[in-house]
Amino acid sequence: MTKSALQIARAAYQPKLPKALQGAVAVKEGEATQSVADQEAIQKLFPNTYGMPLIQFVEGADSEHAPMNVGVILSGGQAPGGHNVISGLFDGIKKLNPANKLYGFILGPGGLVDHKYKELTADIIDEYRNTGGFDIIGSGRTKLETVEQFEKGYEILKELGIKALVIIGGDDSNTNACVLAEYYAAKNYGIQVIGCPKTIDGDLKNEMIETSFGFDTACKTYSEVIGNIQRDCNSARKYWHFIKLMGRSASHIALECALQVQPNVCIVSEEVEEKNMSLDDVVTYIAQVVANRAADGNNFGTVLIPEGLIEFIPAMKSLIAELNDFLAHNGEEFNNIKRSKQREYIISKLSEANSAIYASLPEGVARQLSLDRDPHGNVQVSLIETEKLLSEMVATKLAAWKEEGKFVGKFAAQHHFFGYEGRCAAPSNFDADYCYSLGYTASMLMAAGKTGYMSSVRNTTAPAAEWIAGGVPITMMMNMERRHGEMKPVIQKALVKLEGAPFKAFAAQRETWAKETAYVYPGPIQYFGPSEVCDQPTKTLQLEQGK
Amino acid sequence: MTKSALQIARAAYQPKLPKALQGAVAVKEGEATQSVADQEAIQKLFPNTYGMPLIQFVEGADSEHAPMNVGVILSGGQAPGGHNVISGLFDGIKKLNPANKLYGFILGPGGLVDHKYKELTADIIDEYRNTGGFDIIGSGRTKLETVEQFEKGYEILKELGIKALVIIGGDDSNTNACVLAEYYAAKNYGIQVIGCPKTIDGDLKNEMIETSFGFDTACKTYSEVIGNIQRDCNSARKYWHFIKLMGRSASHIALECALQVQPNVCIVSEEVEEKNMSLDDVVTYIAQVVANRAADGNNFGTVLIPEGLIEFIPAMKSLIAELNDFLAHNGEEFNNIKRSKQREYIISKLSEANSAIYASLPEGVARQLSLDRDPHGNVQVSLIETEKLLSEMVATKLAAWKEEGKFVGKFAAQHHFFGYEGRCAAPSNFDADYCYSLGYTASMLMAAGKTGYMSSVRNTTAPAAEWIAGGVPITMMMNMERRHGEMKPVIQKALVKLEGAPFKAFAAQRETWAKETAYVYPGPIQYFGPSEVCDQPTKTLQLEQGK
Repeated sequence: MTKSALQIARAAYQPKLPKALQGAVAVKEGEATQSVADQEAIQKLFPNTYGMPLIQFVEGADSEHAPMNVGVILSGGQAPGGHNVISGLFDGIKKLNPANKLYGFILGPGGLVDHKYKELTADIIDEYRNTGGFDIIGSGRTKLETVEQFEKGYEILKELGIKALVIIGGDDSNTNACVLAEYYAAKNYGIQVIGCPKTIDGDLKNEMIETSFGFDTACKTYSEVIGNIQRDCNSARKYWHFIKLMGRSASHIALECALQVQPNVCIVSEEVEEKNMSLDDVVTYIAQVVANRAADGNNFGTVLIPEGLIEFIPAMKSLIAELNDFLAHNGEEFNNIKRSKQREYIISKLSEANSAIYASLPEGVARQLSLDRDPHGNVQVSLIETEKLLSEMVATKLAAWKEEGKFVGKFAAQHHFFGYEGRCAAPSNFDADYCYSLGYTASMLMAAGKTGYMSSVRNTTAPAAEWIAGGVPITMMMNMERRHGEMKPVIQKALVKLEGAPFKAFAAQRETWAKETAYVYPGPIQYFGPSEVCDQPTKTLQLEQGK
Repeated sequence: MTKSALQIARAAYQPKLPKALQGAVAVKEGEATQSVADQEAIQKLFPNTYGMPLIQFVEGADSEHAPMNVGVILSGGQAPGGHNVISGLFDGIKKLNPANKLYGFILGPGGLVDHKYKELTADIIDEYRNTGGFDIIGSGRTKLETVEQFEKGYEILKELGIKALVIIGGDDSNTNACVLAEYYAAKNYGIQVIGCPKTIDGDLKNEMIETSFGFDTACKTYSEVIGNIQRDCNSARKYWHFIKLMGRSASHIALECALQVQPNVCIVSEEVEEKNMSLDDVVTYIAQVVANRAADGNNFGTVLIPEGLIEFIPAMKSLIAELNDFLAHNGEEFNNIKRSKQREYIISKLSEANSAIYASLPEGVARQLSLDRDPHGNVQVSLIETEKLLSEMVATKLAAWKEEGKFVGKFAAQHHFFGYEGRCAAPSNFDADYCYSLGYTASMLMAAGKTGYMSSVRNTTAPAAEWIAGGVPITMMMNMERRHGEMKPVIQKALVKLEGAPFKAFAAQRETWAKETAYVYPGPIQYFGPSEVCDQPTKTLQLEQGK
């Protein structure tokens, strides 16, 4: 296998561990916990895994550990550092007892159900230390939800002598990990289940989980290329760059990148929803920034857009809901309408408010909304090229303003969408250390006989040695939410808080950034240089922790 | 001005110089030179700057240098390292005589003509050392071609007491630099003109100019994100990523990236032209690779596409030529045709061969070809989304093969275009050193009283101290070519040579890369680590020099 020079050099990096994990470990138990809401309902659903105490690891005395086999699963979208969680887990269980074995289930939770697995030996692990991607065992999106799946899983776990299973995933996967932990506990199967918090979107975080892994690396990779584009923008002085960033529900990525690069505009979905902004409000805001800069002779700039924006605009949400509903009932009639008449047809059928919004959309977007539907007949919002939608609508508005004399300048746009460019980047030092520590912590939770816990590493703006490792009962993070018409226990998604320090820091500066050219150029992630370049956590984390 | 940690750390980097430039310098003159072709015609056009000797700088004895003011211009598209050429030039002239002054002309050659300039003082230079972009003075695309421009330029040069002008640009800008040098020499204006070889496209190179600056950094930045996409691709195992790379005429960037990342497919425009491949041939080749991998259960992969591909497909070139010609004469009639009938209209009017090709194109692309025209009525080839064109046509072909049982698998595509992401990246160590050396060399050429030379730094696969600095008469690289119907002296564009070592290395391995998953993950450019990670030149350069 050919490797790049950096792959080779990086393989030798030894991730840093919290001091408490560097030698033998003791468990310090905290108070019993409660779920964040709906305590009664959650407790009823999780009689065996509710109310458990917080766990913190401290330095302890050496002790013997009986041999134990362990399984690991990667669930959902890739995030930088997944391989380091696994190598931390591997090193942790080998430290407990060199006879311990680690099995990886192939292509996600489906591998557990379908009994597809491989043993992860030292040779294999060494190939993947400090690398990006999930390719060591692959990932998948199968949801572990049914008793049949749990029983199929139990079959293979029993066969392989696996006593504990680690599920690395986002909020849904960790919820399911807890349901599985509860099921195996209720059945007395003797199998522990531990979760690890992963998502580049950054929306799995709370008091005990300071950040989900991969967010740091992904945001830094996006910020690198956005910074490069800004330097280009500021040199060529002739384009507005509309840059969409991955992140379906929360705008953490767009916000972190904005804090890193200081663009002219960054839209935050949560603010759009909170202020009940219409699509036209968003367009007008951007167009006004363009016009103000043009008045200074600056016909260039950058606009960051979170992928999920459309679904946060209340009026668009309502339009999409009505479209979904209408086409579900009138799909056949619609399909018989001539393509060139479909737009008129839709406009004539929708309620007045939604009809007006639909009519205001550029043709291509309107078509995407009515034609590109998933197998359930729903609009495929992720296919909408929001960056082009906004720039087209801004162009139209500016043309009108030009006629009125309210805009004197030129407007030409370039479009970008960054997602795949960062999800599998090799982890930054922060993510390499953080992930390795999360995996190592998971092994210690297993040794302590815990189940239904999520691996937790806190105090992450301090040097790694001072990080606090432990476990959080997953039920502690849950509340009840309506999903597909039913109330379900789920981990609360952490959206951007408008009263939080990161958003407030952004809001305090954005008017200056809009008018001036205050670009910052973060450059590529560095692994070997001075600590202030290589080891800094995200701006989001620093601001949240008051640094 | 807020700066990132890397910007601050990087500002302190002292670029490496060839040993001969580290102290006082002496000039070693070589043999008289000839142009690469059309010697008689070129000599006639450049009586004062033709046939001059090659120059090499060697260690010399200290000597006095009379004060001299110098001007500098950035011409054309951005490339990483432009600021380092200017800082090398600045340090060079200050070393010659601390009283020397450097003036930058604003927004490209137009700044010379319009008398827009600023003095570049030490404070300003220090802000831009080792940074990407051209924003120190901006760039522009005005061509210096007319006597009026030359005279307007002379006015301001005389006024500022400028004795020598450095033009940093691509092949065309350097050709024009030589025309200007010749003009000022013929007029005895006492103003020297020196060129510096810039272009991320890598097509300004020859025996004396081993590489043009910026190519190294741009290719490494693109390779970083392509590598990340490949890691994602190999983890998710469900998409084919079609990745278009900047570079209008030559495929050097796509080829270098292919050598770095080992994708499943890389199309090289020069090969397509040489083998007289049709669009269908290209599509069939890609579809076959997809089908072969699908047979192994690998429904994922990567395809690199050079931006200029369409214009290298002989049949497409002929179609575009006929369309340009036809619409120039029948534009009015065409504009009166109903939009939905335009496609049929074009098909009915073109010659049989071109009509068939036009009919085979996906609707969106056919529309781009006939509707999106520049102010001269020409097809805007750069607007064609070649990456989508190819993936759509591959999908169509695979659907047909599926019916015939020749394809068993799934095909889903993602699209990317990388250009602006790399043009203004902060220069790699290589480009930082190379550019600084080019600028420093330019100052020594001025001190030696030279004009019509291009700054040349060779032996660039050796450590910087062993690099050979000197000057090449620009006329030496010229031949006569037809441009807009007239024979003009121009610097030969260096396309990818199919018999060259880089292409041969690629061709020898591409079948393996197509079938297997042999991805390499270069990762981000590193500035501070081990030399094998931070200081390696491109694979292209290493292969060309037999390393």
